Amino acid sequence: MTRQIRNILFIMFDQLRWDYLGCAGHPFLETPHIDALAARGVRFSRTYVQSPVCGASRMSTYTGRYVSSHGAAWNNFPLKVGERTIGSHLRRLGMESWLIGKTHMKADAAGMEELGVSRDGVIGARVAECGFDPWVRDDGLWGEGPDGFYDDKRSPYNAYLHAQGYDVANPWHDHANAGVTEAGDMASGWLMQHADRPANIREQDSETPWLTSRAIEFMEAKRGAAPWLCHLSYIKPHWPYIVPAPYHAMYGRNQVVPPVRHPSERAAPHPVYEQYMNNAIGRAFSRDAVRDKVIPAYMGLIKQCDDQMGRLFAYLEDSGRMEDTLIVITSDHGDYLGDHWLGEKDLFHECSVKVPLIIFDPRAEADDTRGTVCDALVEQIDLAATFIEAAGGEVPAHVVEGRSLMPFLEGAAPEDWRSFAISEYDYSATPMAANLGLAPRDARLFMVADTRWKFMHAEGGFRPMLFDLHSDPQELTDLGASPAHAGIIDAMYARLGLWARRMAQRTAISDAQILGMRGKSRRTGILLGLYDGTEVPEELTVRYRGPAPHLKE
Amino acid sequence: MTRQIRNILFIMFDQLRWDYLGCAGHPFLETPHIDALAARGVRFSRTYVQSPVCGASRMSTYTGRYVSSHGAAWNNFPLKVGERTIGSHLRRLGMESWLIGKTHMKADAAGMEELGVSRDGVIGARVAECGFDPWVRDDGLWGEGPDGFYDDKRSPYNAYLHAQGYDVANPWHDHANAGVTEAGDMASGWLMQHADRPANIREQDSETPWLTSRAIEFMEAKRGAAPWLCHLSYIKPHWPYIVPAPYHAMYGRNQVVPPVRHPSERAAPHPVYEQYMNNAIGRAFSRDAVRDKVIPAYMGLIKQCDDQMGRLFAYLEDSGRMEDTLIVITSDHGDYLGDHWLGEKDLFHECSVKVPLIIFDPRAEADDTRGTVCDALVEQIDLAATFIEAAGGEVPAHVVEGRSLMPFLEGAAPEDWRSFAISEYDYSATPMAANLGLAPRDARLFMVADTRWKFMHAEGGFRPMLFDLHSDPQELTDLGASPAHAGIIDAMYARLGLWARRMAQRTAISDAQILGMRGKSRRTGILLGLYDGTEVPEELTVRYRGPAPHLKE
Repeated sequence: MTRQIRNILFIMFDQLRWDYLGCAGHPFLETPHIDALAARGVRFSRTYVQSPVCGASRMSTYTGRYVSSHGAAWNNFPLKVGERTIGSHLRRLGMESWLIGKTHMKADAAGMEELGVSRDGVIGARVAECGFDPWVRDDGLWGEGPDGFYDDKRSPYNAYLHAQGYDVANPWHDHANAGVTEAGDMASGWLMQHADRPANIREQDSETPWLTSRAIEFMEAKRGAAPWLCHLSYIKPHWPYIVPAPYHAMYGRNQVVPPVRHPSERAAPHPVYEQYMNNAIGRAFSRDAVRDKVIPAYMGLIKQCDDQMGRLFAYLEDSGRMEDTLIVITSDHGDYLGDHWLGEKDLFHECSVKVPLIIFDPRAEADDTRGTVCDALVEQIDLAATFIEAAGGEVPAHVVEGRSLMPFLEGAAPEDWRSFAISEYDYSATPMAANLGLAPRDARLFMVADTRWKFMHAEGGFRPMLFDLHSDPQELTDLGASPAHAGIIDAMYARLGLWARRMAQRTAISDAQILGMRGKSRRTGILLGLYDGTEVPEELTVRYRGPAPHLKE
Repeated sequence: MTRQIRNILFIMFDQLRWDYLGCAGHPFLETPHIDALAARGVRFSRTYVQSPVCGASRMSTYTGRYVSSHGAAWNNFPLKVGERTIGSHLRRLGMESWLIGKTHMKADAAGMEELGVSRDGVIGARVAECGFDPWVRDDGLWGEGPDGFYDDKRSPYNAYLHAQGYDVANPWHDHANAGVTEAGDMASGWLMQHADRPANIREQDSETPWLTSRAIEFMEAKRGAAPWLCHLSYIKPHWPYIVPAPYHAMYGRNQVVPPVRHPSERAAPHPVYEQYMNNAIGRAFSRDAVRDKVIPAYMGLIKQCDDQMGRLFAYLEDSGRMEDTLIVITSDHGDYLGDHWLGEKDLFHECSVKVPLIIFDPRAEADDTRGTVCDALVEQIDLAATFIEAAGGEVPAHVVEGRSLMPFLEGAAPEDWRSFAISEYDYSATPMAANLGLAPRDARLFMVADTRWKFMHAEGGFRPMLFDLHSDPQELTDLGASPAHAGIIDAMYARLGLWARRMAQRTAISDAQILGMRGKSRRTGILLGLYDGTEVPEELTVRYRGPAPHLKE
């Protein structure tokens, strides 16, 4: 069998930090299966998501466009009708596009209704599912409170657990994401004091193996069928931080790396950063007790993910798919885990905005780069472009803002590669915006990062933030108010301006079509600037010569 | 009858300069009917279009959004599916939206097909017609050359002329836009040497009276029907510059005002400006012979427009519509007519980018401002917002970027009115871009103007342009390379950056919806940052308390 790219297995983890992998240098966490893929592919060590939050990050990754371009700037902000996705691009190229797991996509119901696009039709169903055909769609957030469920769709995972005999209303929570106290009470994974308990579920029924089984089932069903992209989109190691046995006990507080933080960060912080430090999450993760409970569970969740990768890759080898499948492993954002006095994601420190990215290309053309690490500035929107090129298409640069990574896989870095990366964050729907008194359009952040400087602009009249990654790789010293760095800040603003003026919405006409229009209107009779017609070849005016027609009075 | 706003008559001329009206101070051209409307309404003396070219300008006006926001950046660049228009906003408010005349809208056929939106349905028909129901759609450009027609639709105007007995294939050209030479040959209006001849058509059959008749017919048909907006969109005084008798002879070279230009403009000009000066149009309009032929015809076309306004306003008075109709008169851009060594439009000198704008509001609330001139910085996208408010709606600020002018009509200028106006120009499809060696995404210009400074940024690595409208109201001295103005240029770049980072695509969720989301996820069971649950009211965690369910092995 010739090694080729026939399929694409696009694996995304959720909230997986770039540095919580063996191959990325974690001192305690061993991820041999993922490391093995890195050894056979290229690891991109400087990959930024376009927004450090699930929904916005994914909408960028699935469209190949910046957040400001597609507008779905936060969780549950709908992706507006008309935004093209990986699925719509690949389907034109004869490649199916399937989803197994999470997208966090909210359909633009009002926009669909306005255009008469119904979910009952195949077009509308795909529009509502971010361009994918869902093999199984499950966003993994079946939280429930006084106002009902966070996600009001049907839960395929709960349906699965019910079929396995878990006979409570919401086994996602009561089993998969809760342990048991010594007194026999439910120990909800939402309460981080319980993070060291085993989840009250059979390991094979927990979310990560469940999705792996669906992926293997999918690939079995698709043997010999049309080429496919399969977006295998895991929910973990995202919170709730709780994991079934034996993973709950694999790591302890001795394997918790010290937090990257310094008291000086709390002196005169940027007002937006300060808000995040002072919210409930930041305060909780600043406590050692919380980190010592949560991080071993987080590591256990990753360890389980890695074991499932082992299972998946074994299937790929056995079925021959390793010969014809481009495999990508990445994440939608990281997790502060107490670094910089923060929890969760949202801001632009490396642990939040940088993600793992490993690409395995089965072709002989990629043999020279196997096992290498590429430190080029990658934006996760590059994946959409990569997939289009991998599927044999030409990247429609008037729509997809990312660039194909295929040249890097073939060992030929483009000379005109980008010199800075962009990420954005819209916190308009958060209490932090309310605390700062910001209108929804002012609660927006922009990151501009090159290989040395990382800059953040905040709308709303705040000063910027700036880190020197050379002298301060841990990003502990904010130079945003430093007069000595005014020139750097100006230069970063110039880059932000260049990017902000980009051509992002001229999506209904291609560059090639525009080039084809140049100077053509004369040949359809639009004759400007002529005095007597001698200025142009006679053929352009011949239709307007000859005897005048008679005018009846 | 109480004076109220029940209907909106939105009159647009094409290529009408702001200063070619009696009420704007033209020394020779008398436009008593338009002036009379200005005397009964408000004339906005500083109104900028969002792009000085038909298609892009109109797509901004019809969507209420900047060119970079909707992407239809030049003539025949499609308006992508999903962009909302005046029609879609007003129809929700119970107001119909009708078109009589020109839009220059190109439907996004590929986008419609991708979403399964068919022109055969009422939704698709409106999407394809920029949100309007066409009473008659006629873009007035029935030019024909070796490659066929510029506009491949059916021509309603040619059908009308055929019905009137003009029995040639293309009477738009051969009659309406051509005269007769002394030898009896056709004197095409495309050749400017013929601009002083009368068009070979009965005056009442020429384009301007034809559309006026359609508008009166429309209003007669709609008596007693639902409220309407009627976009009466004239084709004139746009080229070809030729007009029927008696208008062809009303003005002569003695009424041609001198060109606003200076030889110093040709020394070291901005490279983009230089390209436009040196193209066929710029060269032609730099000749006095051309101006002396063309400008009297242009004035005659305007005079005919004004006479048709008289006819229209008489109908409005007689039918009672003057009591219940908001009336707007404006244009889609100006015409250089030889000023600054240029013809046509395209760049940002006042004669190109500034347009007339007169609004008559029948309500008593507007009585205090009748006959006044408002010099606030108006962008033509403000009209969409004005219409929505006039129709009783609230302006959806997450979609419509313009702001309502109703407060100005009521004599109450908002305190937070904009301090600068934006216009854009995309010349990627022109020979000028080819001459400059520019890729399609680099052939883009941006204007930032306040009441003193007018600044132009050009992508592609060029210096900016800058004019001081106080000391140089004729815009003859380009300060874009002046070291003394570096501070002003920096400030204009900062404004451009602020604008470029605007929130333009978050259109699928309103600000009110976002404010309603703040802090709500906890009440749907997303409980972040909790250690033992004591951090929040008990009701938020009660669902996650109680005995643990039994786990079957």
